[in-house]
Amino acid sequence: MSSTFGNKLRISVFGQSHGEGLGVVLDGLPAGLSIDLTRIGAFLSRRAPGKKAAYSTARRESDEPRILSGLVEGKTCGAPLCAVFENNDARSNDYERMRFLPRPGHADYPAFVKHKGFNDIRGGGHFSARLTLPLCFAGAVCLQILKEKGVSIGAHILSVKDICDVPFDPVEVDEAALYLPKERQLPVLNADVIPQMEKLFEETAAAGDSVGGVIECCVLGLPVGLGEPMFDGLENRLSASVFAVPAVKGIEFGAGFEASRLFGSENNDPFCYKDGKVKTKTNRHGGILGGLSSGMPLVFRAAMKPTPSIAIEQDTVNLQSEENAKLTVTGRHDVCIVPRAVPCIEAAAAIALADLMI
Amino acid sequence: MSSTFGNKLRISVFGQSHGEGLGVVLDGLPAGLSIDLTRIGAFLSRRAPGKKAAYSTARRESDEPRILSGLVEGKTCGAPLCAVFENNDARSNDYERMRFLPRPGHADYPAFVKHKGFNDIRGGGHFSARLTLPLCFAGAVCLQILKEKGVSIGAHILSVKDICDVPFDPVEVDEAALYLPKERQLPVLNADVIPQMEKLFEETAAAGDSVGGVIECCVLGLPVGLGEPMFDGLENRLSASVFAVPAVKGIEFGAGFEASRLFGSENNDPFCYKDGKVKTKTNRHGGILGGLSSGMPLVFRAAMKPTPSIAIEQDTVNLQSEENAKLTVTGRHDVCIVPRAVPCIEAAAAIALADLMI
Amino acid sequence: MSSTFGNKLRISVFGQSHGEGLGVVLDGLPAGLSIDLTRIGAFLSRRAPGKKAAYSTARRESDEPRILSGLVEGKTCGAPLCAVFENNDARSNDYERMRFLPRPGHADYPAFVKHKGFNDIRGGGHFSARLTLPLCFAGAVCLQILKEKGVSIGAHILSVKDICDVPFDPVEVDEAALYLPKERQLPVLNADVIPQMEKLFEETAAAGDSVGGVIECCVLGLPVGLGEPMFDGLENRLSASVFAVPAVKGIEFGAGFEASRLFGSENNDPFCYKDGKVKTKTNRHGGILGGLSSGMPLVFRAAMKPTPSIAIEQDTVNLQSEENAKLTVTGRHDVCIVPRAVPCIEAAAAIALADLMI
Amino acid sequence: MSSTFGNKLRISVFGQSHGEGLGVVLDGLPAGLSIDLTRIGAFLSRRAPGKKAAYSTARRESDEPRILSGLVEGKTCGAPLCAVFENNDARSNDYERMRFLPRPGHADYPAFVKHKGFNDIRGGGHFSARLTLPLCFAGAVCLQILKEKGVSIGAHILSVKDICDVPFDPVEVDEAALYLPKERQLPVLNADVIPQMEKLFEETAAAGDSVGGVIECCVLGLPVGLGEPMFDGLENRLSASVFAVPAVKGIEFGAGFEASRLFGSENNDPFCYKDGKVKTKTNRHGGILGGLSSGMPLVFRAAMKPTPSIAIEQDTVNLQSEENAKLTVTGRHDVCIVPRAVPCIEAAAAIALADLMI
Repeated sequence: MSSTFGNKLRISVFGQSHGEGLGVVLDGLPAGLSIDLTRIGAFLSRRAPGKKAAYSTARRESDEPRILSGLVEGKTCGAPLCAVFENNDARSNDYERMRFLPRPGHADYPAFVKHKGFNDIRGGGHFSARLTLPLCFAGAVCLQILKEKGVSIGAHILSVKDICDVPFDPVEVDEAALYLPKERQLPVLNADVIPQMEKLFEETAAAGDSVGGVIECCVLGLPVGLGEPMFDGLENRLSASVFAVPAVKGIEFGAGFEASRLFGSENNDPFCYKDGKVKTKTNRHGGILGGLSSGMPLVFRAAMKPTPSIAIEQDTVNLQSEENAKLTVTGRHDVCIVPRAVPCIEAAAAIALADLMI
Repeated sequence: MSSTFGNKLRISVFGQSHGEGLGVVLDGLPAGLSIDLTRIGAFLSRRAPGKKAAYSTARRESDEPRILSGLVEGKTCGAPLCAVFENNDARSNDYERMRFLPRPGHADYPAFVKHKGFNDIRGGGHFSARLTLPLCFAGAVCLQILKEKGVSIGAHILSVKDICDVPFDPVEVDEAALYLPKERQLPVLNADVIPQMEKLFEETAAAGDSVGGVIECCVLGLPVGLGEPMFDGLENRLSASVFAVPAVKGIEFGAGFEASRLFGSENNDPFCYKDGKVKTKTNRHGGILGGLSSGMPLVFRAAMKPTPSIAIEQDTVNLQSEENAKLTVTGRHDVCIVPRAVPCIEAAAAIALADLMI
Repeated sequence: MSSTFGNKLRISVFGQSHGEGLGVVLDGLPAGLSIDLTRIGAFLSRRAPGKKAAYSTARRESDEPRILSGLVEGKTCGAPLCAVFENNDARSNDYERMRFLPRPGHADYPAFVKHKGFNDIRGGGHFSARLTLPLCFAGAVCLQILKEKGVSIGAHILSVKDICDVPFDPVEVDEAALYLPKERQLPVLNADVIPQMEKLFEETAAAGDSVGGVIECCVLGLPVGLGEPMFDGLENRLSASVFAVPAVKGIEFGAGFEASRLFGSENNDPFCYKDGKVKTKTNRHGGILGGLSSGMPLVFRAAMKPTPSIAIEQDTVNLQSEENAKLTVTGRHDVCIVPRAVPCIEAAAAIALADLMI
Repeated sequence: MSSTFGNKLRISVFGQSHGEGLGVVLDGLPAGLSIDLTRIGAFLSRRAPGKKAAYSTARRESDEPRILSGLVEGKTCGAPLCAVFENNDARSNDYERMRFLPRPGHADYPAFVKHKGFNDIRGGGHFSARLTLPLCFAGAVCLQILKEKGVSIGAHILSVKDICDVPFDPVEVDEAALYLPKERQLPVLNADVIPQMEKLFEETAAAGDSVGGVIECCVLGLPVGLGEPMFDGLENRLSASVFAVPAVKGIEFGAGFEASRLFGSENNDPFCYKDGKVKTKTNRHGGILGGLSSGMPLVFRAAMKPTPSIAIEQDTVNLQSEENAKLTVTGRHDVCIVPRAVPCIEAAAAIALADLMI
């Protein structure tokens, strides 16, 4: 049990960074659903490496899904849908010399212990961020399902290091705000911060370093009352899927950690009728009360640590000789994983919500 | 599906705040385990209301578990263990007049919609924090299982509003630090902050208000490699259980949100050998790499919003007349739920970890 | 994992034959459902021991459920429903001397090994047929859910030893046929066979022996297409629940084992329109095609072995001295468990089907 | 949810008879396991169509698995294992004219209703017996896991129509008896019955008909106490997987239906010590007591209906015009699916048992 998610819509992700291929099976899709592969392709392209060579990985994969099952003439047929991606541009020799030198911040060491040295170390194996490709495919399918039910999901970079984008207005956000213009170089609401962010990326790349950030995600159109009490509340289910995106180290809903510094009278969101519907005047609860959707925009933020792959020499250990050692990670990496993680967070949210709504 | 958790150890929680009784079934316990009911009682008493009437709920329950099954002469017999608690001091008339007046910040409104008005509104029904009683019982059993495997869990109040306790030292914390002296009035590491916190509670109570806080939890002794990739990583599983504690609105592991403001060279924890064991020199990863335990102390923090039950008049709606309305919540409530939530967070962590380790 | 069933409606059964109490939690019931406790009581009374002392167990329990949670004024409130039964008439001293003498045909020996001797041996512990009491409670609730959806379930004794009742007509059975007259001494369609069966029971009792039989169960009103392919077909799900009834050693759907002796031209059921609906002219498929309901009556049969508790001396082993031994089982037992198992089979079927239909 | 099985080892099967490809993901395999692809190939070849054109399908597929993930240098690496098979010799035009003419005995009609006409009708789509190919792959992997734990599984044709092979001796069967000589034309213990069976197949083929049979399966080497009470007993779990093999309509364990005609004194298997181990003198319980393995050979039988694809004209309905209709199925089919189903039953059993033992 590990790479499987969902109760009503079961998603099973497989593959390693440098294996033959990777993919995903979605079991439980209703029949007769039109799956728009062009839109899926557009979604996946948001996860593709950036074009600026200065700070983007040089690995280039076509990332074209091959649908093995589940579709007949573009529509789901009720059978499990399986999509497969090939790995073509994997360079495994980058990794062999690191077999016994776990990279700081990566899963290498605990994976080595867990799998008694049999884990696929090439590119991080099954722990690689490349696995977000089938995750995004599954998410893109789920986004189409949700769309048909009136649910929309959008995310953006809220910050990288101390450079901040504007947050969504949690009360008044409308659907258009969720979809950023295609031509925008980075997924931010306020395009003015892009030059600053790019400058930071270039400087960080030049230093052989990496940098983290925060992603904010918003979901509109959820029916009131979605979610279950206790262990299957929206916070529980969204966390359970969002932490599948590598490098996520924290999640908060609505006011989140800030709520811990407030009085109840400050944090409670008063109810009111608005156009005949029950709304809250403010939205510090992030659209979730008691694990259930309140009908207000669902807003959460995911904290992403800087990608641990840096070009600077680091201290590590040699698991074979059992001595301290030095390591310089080469390979091809992004300086900041946050821009490419934006659709991954949307995908993770979509998977959790589609499972509850199907 | 809702109040059930776990794959190998399945926990099923039932009950409502003012119903006949509440309890929990644990299915999957190994046979032959000694269950120390005295230690369980001591654990549950940490969740009991504080003694200071000024800021603690006046509801008094014995919280004595009755074990219906699963134990023979104090040892598990391999059959599901069921513990039941009675509700004796419930005063349901406090709630009846609020049937159509959802309390801001509570689950009342989405629960009303979800359950078409059939939900038990008395004391929040199944959404009540009283449900943490069977959760704590299950957690106390799991803590005993974990203890036998060398795993210890401890938590404390890291902050209420802007009054901060000292954090655990994530590198050097030892087991003794996890267990606070019994006589300590509040579960904090640095007793010097207690007077400040109590003063805040009294002032808040006097104002008819409530206040939030942050709980920090540490787990020692986990085997390296525990957890599964992607959806069953430690972060995923711990979140899935910790958000079962009402009022939790955020969770972060290790450096958490702070990591988003760091460079990789600052955030990566270098490996080294220490007494023949692989350790990291720092612990910003919070003991989890790639979803797997690294062998370092597992550290996470949960943000708790102020309890939404306040005595100040609030704006709400009347779901029957469909008009805006005013509401003053009476009932009996804690001014700050954080102290009583400390063992609940430990329990939630224990449940998630025992399920992975059994 | 063991005593938990269901994906959408999770049922968790707990208790031992001679423990404090036993019961069941149903998690996932829709809110607003009227639960008729009188009808549940009537259903449970069909499982109660027969009145004829000659061949019925002398153990007498009130079998009155106490509802701890999940109901408000007779209606489900969306929270898990927990029902508890007390054990009052347990006589555990009957069993102590058999601790190391496993009863042939019982779970004693493998349970002893599995649970390293910590299993509750009194009355078979968690393996006792007494656990069908909470199973029947859960089934009775599910029968009410199914009834609201137009689904009816009925079962009868098809045979004990070589005395046969008439089978349901699998094509023309109507709902009335599913419910036997209350006053009927044994649950058979053809009352004429009752004297023969009773005579057999008396003779068997006199010989200190026991006897097995076959139960036939029929489900009407299922929507066409219910079930899932492969592992969650109706046969898979019904088997998974029906084998929870102790002593069941076989199950067959439609023509079942007889189908293995037929040509395809004999076994295939031709389709036809009847009153504007698609029907089959015959029903050897038992209402299930490819794991999915066909709209025809669902018919299955469960084979029940004779209860292994007999008064005749038997060969066994002494697990302590590791020697061969003799055993005479005393205690209080039914000569033929089949009549009391009839509602249990209905309950097991109801649980599996309600889980698919909710 | 449908084509997914297992709690600790999750198996997700995908594909349709005439789709692009089909396959299976196994999630939860321990790392470091050698997977012998040659042995898997040999196992799959037992499922391949017979060579005798007179009564075997003319469809010819290479059935060569392509391993996309989960293996590194022939050993499992702890990541999900995905195997894919191509469909090359599918002739979909055989099926198009039958879109609205459901074949008697097939899933066509309920699948049409369930999936609102969007199901893949070509070759039965996801309901096709071709899906037993990935099932057999998964089973072959599980058989290797079980073998390492000392568990062996073998099956044979017990009967086709009224031609009977000899059954396994349930007390004395040894491992060699489970593996039939490769050159044997049909998987039977007593080669003398082969000419009779082949004659029946040829006659049945000549008549355009098909014929059913019974498969007996035996498992050796299970540890005592495997299985869980109630819903996860060995009978429950084995049924849940064995009914995934198309055409299975019944299953019985040990004496099965015959036990219903016995007295307890006849059916109980007395215990005795044999070479220092607890055994039973007879084995009418089929190696399972109370859902748990007793240490005796586990024996079960699966009843297989005749494959519903016959060349004889049959009555059916036209779902478009809503009139009665006639249908003659062409396509390519086996006259008797039983020989090819023998490894499928072994595979299904292996999947269920490996899930319990991992």
